[in-house]
Amino acid sequence: MKPALLLSALFLVVARAAPLPVDEALPLVGAAGHGHTYPGATVPFGFVQLSPDTRTEGWDACSGYHYSDSTIMGFSHTHLSGTGAADLGQVLIMPFTGGLDEGAGYKPLAAERFQSRFSHDDEKAQPGYYRVSLTSYSITAELTATAHAGMHRYAFPASEQGHLLVDLVHGINNPPTGADLKIENDHLVTGYRSSDGWARNKTVYFVIECSRAFESFGLEVDDKPLEPGLTEAKGKNVRCHLDYRTSAGQAIVLRVGLSPTSLEEARENLQTEIPTWDFDAIRESARAAWNENLARIRVDSSNPNIRQTFYSALYHTMTAPTLYDNADGSYRGTDNVVRSSGFHHYSTFSLWDTFRAEHPLLTLTEPERVNDFVRSLLAFYQESPDHVLPLWPLTSCDTECMIGYHAVPVIYDAYRKGFRGFDAELAYRAMCDTARSGRNWQDEYQKLGYVSAETGKGKQAASRTLEFAFDDWCIAQMARALGKTGDFESFIKRSQSYAATFDPATGFFRGRTARGSFREPFDPRAVSFDDFTEANAWQYAFSVPHDVPGMIKLYGGDQSFIRKLDQLFESDSDIGNYLIDVSGLVGQYSHGNEPCHHIAYLYALAGAQYKTAQRVRQIMLTQYDNTPEGLDGNDDCGQISAWYVWSAMGLYPVNPADGVYVIGSPLVEKATINLDPKYYAGGSFTIIAHGVSKQNGYVQSAKLNGQALNRPWITHEELVKGGTLVLDMGVLPNRSWGAEN
Amino acid sequence: MKPALLLSALFLVVARAAPLPVDEALPLVGAAGHGHTYPGATVPFGFVQLSPDTRTEGWDACSGYHYSDSTIMGFSHTHLSGTGAADLGQVLIMPFTGGLDEGAGYKPLAAERFQSRFSHDDEKAQPGYYRVSLTSYSITAELTATAHAGMHRYAFPASEQGHLLVDLVHGINNPPTGADLKIENDHLVTGYRSSDGWARNKTVYFVIECSRAFESFGLEVDDKPLEPGLTEAKGKNVRCHLDYRTSAGQAIVLRVGLSPTSLEEARENLQTEIPTWDFDAIRESARAAWNENLARIRVDSSNPNIRQTFYSALYHTMTAPTLYDNADGSYRGTDNVVRSSGFHHYSTFSLWDTFRAEHPLLTLTEPERVNDFVRSLLAFYQESPDHVLPLWPLTSCDTECMIGYHAVPVIYDAYRKGFRGFDAELAYRAMCDTARSGRNWQDEYQKLGYVSAETGKGKQAASRTLEFAFDDWCIAQMARALGKTGDFESFIKRSQSYAATFDPATGFFRGRTARGSFREPFDPRAVSFDDFTEANAWQYAFSVPHDVPGMIKLYGGDQSFIRKLDQLFESDSDIGNYLIDVSGLVGQYSHGNEPCHHIAYLYALAGAQYKTAQRVRQIMLTQYDNTPEGLDGNDDCGQISAWYVWSAMGLYPVNPADGVYVIGSPLVEKATINLDPKYYAGGSFTIIAHGVSKQNGYVQSAKLNGQALNRPWITHEELVKGGTLVLDMGVLPNRSWGAEN
Repeated sequence: MKPALLLSALFLVVARAAPLPVDEALPLVGAAGHGHTYPGATVPFGFVQLSPDTRTEGWDACSGYHYSDSTIMGFSHTHLSGTGAADLGQVLIMPFTGGLDEGAGYKPLAAERFQSRFSHDDEKAQPGYYRVSLTSYSITAELTATAHAGMHRYAFPASEQGHLLVDLVHGINNPPTGADLKIENDHLVTGYRSSDGWARNKTVYFVIECSRAFESFGLEVDDKPLEPGLTEAKGKNVRCHLDYRTSAGQAIVLRVGLSPTSLEEARENLQTEIPTWDFDAIRESARAAWNENLARIRVDSSNPNIRQTFYSALYHTMTAPTLYDNADGSYRGTDNVVRSSGFHHYSTFSLWDTFRAEHPLLTLTEPERVNDFVRSLLAFYQESPDHVLPLWPLTSCDTECMIGYHAVPVIYDAYRKGFRGFDAELAYRAMCDTARSGRNWQDEYQKLGYVSAETGKGKQAASRTLEFAFDDWCIAQMARALGKTGDFESFIKRSQSYAATFDPATGFFRGRTARGSFREPFDPRAVSFDDFTEANAWQYAFSVPHDVPGMIKLYGGDQSFIRKLDQLFESDSDIGNYLIDVSGLVGQYSHGNEPCHHIAYLYALAGAQYKTAQRVRQIMLTQYDNTPEGLDGNDDCGQISAWYVWSAMGLYPVNPADGVYVIGSPLVEKATINLDPKYYAGGSFTIIAHGVSKQNGYVQSAKLNGQALNRPWITHEELVKGGTLVLDMGVLPNRSWGAEN
Repeated sequence: MKPALLLSALFLVVARAAPLPVDEALPLVGAAGHGHTYPGATVPFGFVQLSPDTRTEGWDACSGYHYSDSTIMGFSHTHLSGTGAADLGQVLIMPFTGGLDEGAGYKPLAAERFQSRFSHDDEKAQPGYYRVSLTSYSITAELTATAHAGMHRYAFPASEQGHLLVDLVHGINNPPTGADLKIENDHLVTGYRSSDGWARNKTVYFVIECSRAFESFGLEVDDKPLEPGLTEAKGKNVRCHLDYRTSAGQAIVLRVGLSPTSLEEARENLQTEIPTWDFDAIRESARAAWNENLARIRVDSSNPNIRQTFYSALYHTMTAPTLYDNADGSYRGTDNVVRSSGFHHYSTFSLWDTFRAEHPLLTLTEPERVNDFVRSLLAFYQESPDHVLPLWPLTSCDTECMIGYHAVPVIYDAYRKGFRGFDAELAYRAMCDTARSGRNWQDEYQKLGYVSAETGKGKQAASRTLEFAFDDWCIAQMARALGKTGDFESFIKRSQSYAATFDPATGFFRGRTARGSFREPFDPRAVSFDDFTEANAWQYAFSVPHDVPGMIKLYGGDQSFIRKLDQLFESDSDIGNYLIDVSGLVGQYSHGNEPCHHIAYLYALAGAQYKTAQRVRQIMLTQYDNTPEGLDGNDDCGQISAWYVWSAMGLYPVNPADGVYVIGSPLVEKATINLDPKYYAGGSFTIIAHGVSKQNGYVQSAKLNGQALNRPWITHEELVKGGTLVLDMGVLPNRSWGAEN
């Protein structure tokens, strides 16, 4: 036996490197089912979304990609994330090999012809980067993006017949109305594409630079080839192919600048943002931008599913609104005038969805953009012929989709939280003009005190009344803040209109005719657009976020209000006339659509926080995961995702504009919101959930900055001054915690 | 422009290789929270479970490993999977480097002293294989196993002071009572370890062969070193170290044979099962064995979480019962006599748990073991002094844990399904003797018609009455099958005893005193061991799986029975006196403990299959995942896992012994049960869930082998004759499907 050395066992503390937020975010979450997300490359809030198109027809083509597909028709430069209506998919490029014609005669260069098979096993989607093997051609395609430009890298096999297709006909519910495509020289192609669609009358200009000169090319208009020698194609349906002799492993890189205003600006955007041929450098910039944005909320969880679900959701809250301008800030207004603005102009506001939780979240995670969001909405107001705030602006067009005037809460929430980078008086005028316009039954609402129900007209009368009332509450608050006392009185009165559409006999908000009676027949489960918006009476039964005590009174007090909430969740899920939007059902509650999003948090405001905790947990665990199936309905530009971001941290803005965050049931062990010191003095706010696990979901007690917290909410001011909220979590409900409000 | 070749786009169909089942099974599922699984290496139903021990104290040490730990004290050879009581952890080996003594004087070689830090980032757990970096020593440890032997491979750094610790003191609730450790030569160590614990009076014999000769060694008894030169240590507390000079990358391989009967058999087991030093070959055999077993059910799902959760669950259903014998079939009986049996002897039967869904599953997935399971139980009966079937046999000891006599349903289910490899008359005698024994109030139950409630005695009276009644139903069926008409009458009458403990006034099964009144005070939420077993009256309110129509009648018919079920799930989760076993709460339903497991399926037997679908979905999605947090309570030797295996396929054996599988809501797109042709003629049975997704969970219609199926269940006979069950799944409930029974 050898003498033993006097040495204690060595305990090396190996710091476990936490994964970077950017590595936890999975763009493919939501790409199956009806999530309608796209997997391609973009930067936060970028104008360009360079992503594979696998289909262009049908509801599940809204983002151009569906996870169940097995072929790709090419990579186009603009896409919508999570919407229920389709558009964009502009300027498609597809690499392929082989001959161009089949049999006798000329065959048009349609993207459908050249689509390639692909497998999810050979596909990688990361924030700012997408790669896929186009197995039909043995080509590896990689994509990355900047705000106004896209970059492609295509690794071809050795081939005498390598090609790039540029297809300006292709689009997603976006038929071309005119185009130009010019071969400037052997490595430069420029042009524009005008189109109609959901957003009417839009044009995108582009320059495509190729790292290697093509050897030949072919242009086509209206499915007919142009004469050899001609270098410019103009017309409605324009395509071209660029031809290469390729050798294995030799990549062709493309950099593509886009602009909504001019070819010159497209060139400028490209030069400003992609001055290099180094694909990996641009990819790294996109990755760094994402990581910087995603790290604004740091969450700890030992459960990788939860971390990935969280960061995938946070990622998707940063895919809209999107820039609709040039790198220098010039943009095309809804009046078709190009302006230099001094701010960055955004569009793609899915306001009926995103006013609820996404815009309140962005006031914390993206404060540097909030003033520009508001300025962009106000520009729409100023430039629109009707002088109203837009409903659902996309490109420079208001699609006028959905109801309400929910630009109002977005603007008021920003103002309430101290954002002053816009003209408040102008904002207030915009609110009032919109609320008083005759556009969408606002006039009738003002006269009658509610929007009247009429069968078969799709008036969505009860929903309009409820949502107008909430928006009016926001205008009233804005009026008060600006010292307009008379207006405050007038709008606060309007904000009580919700009561006019409540039927105490059935205990539901209902469609009410102009003569005052409630519309018959009535079935609270029946989904229709008669009295409700993509919903039924159950799903709109709690749509008074601005006056919860008043709503509780309508239902007869806390206890019967709680019973009503219980019934919502405990009924079976028969919804009469099935509508695909009404998904994510828990009883009659529909999480896959937006009107229900605040409802589980209402228990807390009626003295039963533990019931909020239970339902919020159930929804997080059943309606989300870290797979392509991970969203239970259209993400709607990030609202479904924003619900999860808030809820997994343990908070939710029940009233999206009053700066109160109701406490639910955090899933993560710790969440730190890192506040931008340019906007908030507090540094950071941390929520710690002691003892939390999948099983431990009930708040036992809470401390805010070391002081006992008994109410089930905190204010925006408490949050942004920084500090720590500690929640002690347990497996059983503590019915007394948070019972006082 | 070049002339284009006439060549159509090439569509290569790339077959996507489905992952192997063995690669989808994650042993770490359940290792966090209170799942109590272990991550180490074992083969299906093996005697050896070679796994890291991170703790030995406290409830969450039952498997020796908890995911929240960051240090490993060594690798011991026997472990329990998912139990709520601790034992085993025998024969610990730990590689380490450095000096042995600290400061002045001799320091005992306790495993605690030499524990190493580790990180989950450098840990890999696969069926049959475990690898971890012991970062305190820069040692990589790998483990694999056969049925009766373990294999270790330790890659040391270059060191003058490399050691292996063999610690026979270490155990998990398993204090040593005697041991022997002999240095046979410079590469062979043999011995035994006797111990007490949950299972009393057990001995394991072992031989440890080292691939490289050690240079020196040290033996220790009762924390004192043996004189140099002595080569055998005998006593209560025995340990040794083996010393090496190691060079980087040069691995030391150990092969360790174990036996419950003798050193000679340990040697035999090792020679039979690990005749090689090729670690990778043994690892590959273990992997192949697992893949063969796991592939007995093939499931398709595009959701990787679901596939992994499924195969992790299926894996865990194959970690118990475990062999308790030698490779040649000899074993140690509970009477301490070693016998050669002609069959493989199993122990570790967590019967109160596993009779419900795991044993019925094993009749399909492991038919070649079913006869031996029964023979092993009957051997216990024959060899036990009281001539009763065991309650919870572990090693050769009946721990007598939990209630009922649930060996009975396991045996009857096997008989009912046609297994004839045991003596049916003997089995029947064993059933009767156990049911009529005076051991656990069976005598009082027989006399009174129920077990009487007595405060503070832990009699679990209502639970016993209910579970005895079910077991008696099984005996009645066995009697009928054997033509014993009189006994049938007698036991079928006993099986109705459940009604005697039902209180119509409160609508609950309750503890009833010997005088006939119900015990007061009564709170259906209060968990105790007075009248119930690890549960409250709510959780036992539906414990009549053998007479569902009779139970429905007690509750006043289908509609009020359904309301009662609704109340169970919809109540809040306050359970009065908290007990940690009662986890996985959905209202008062507790999925983390076993008495509730069949309950969600009862709706289907009362005409509301859609409610079964809804609750089963909710439970699958909230109580399981593919992470260490993926089990919501003790796996209990695989019962929690078995529930998922059945449920994800869309079936469940509500009555564990009547061969009826109730249809719930499949999560997977397709499940094929590959039936062993030696036991079943049918080939395979496939369940196809058309249109299934996380959102589409309601059965719209069904076809069995092409014929419309309107009842919400199939029989064992229908399943094992092979065929296809097609379920059309939709997002909304179809209340009429399955409404007729």
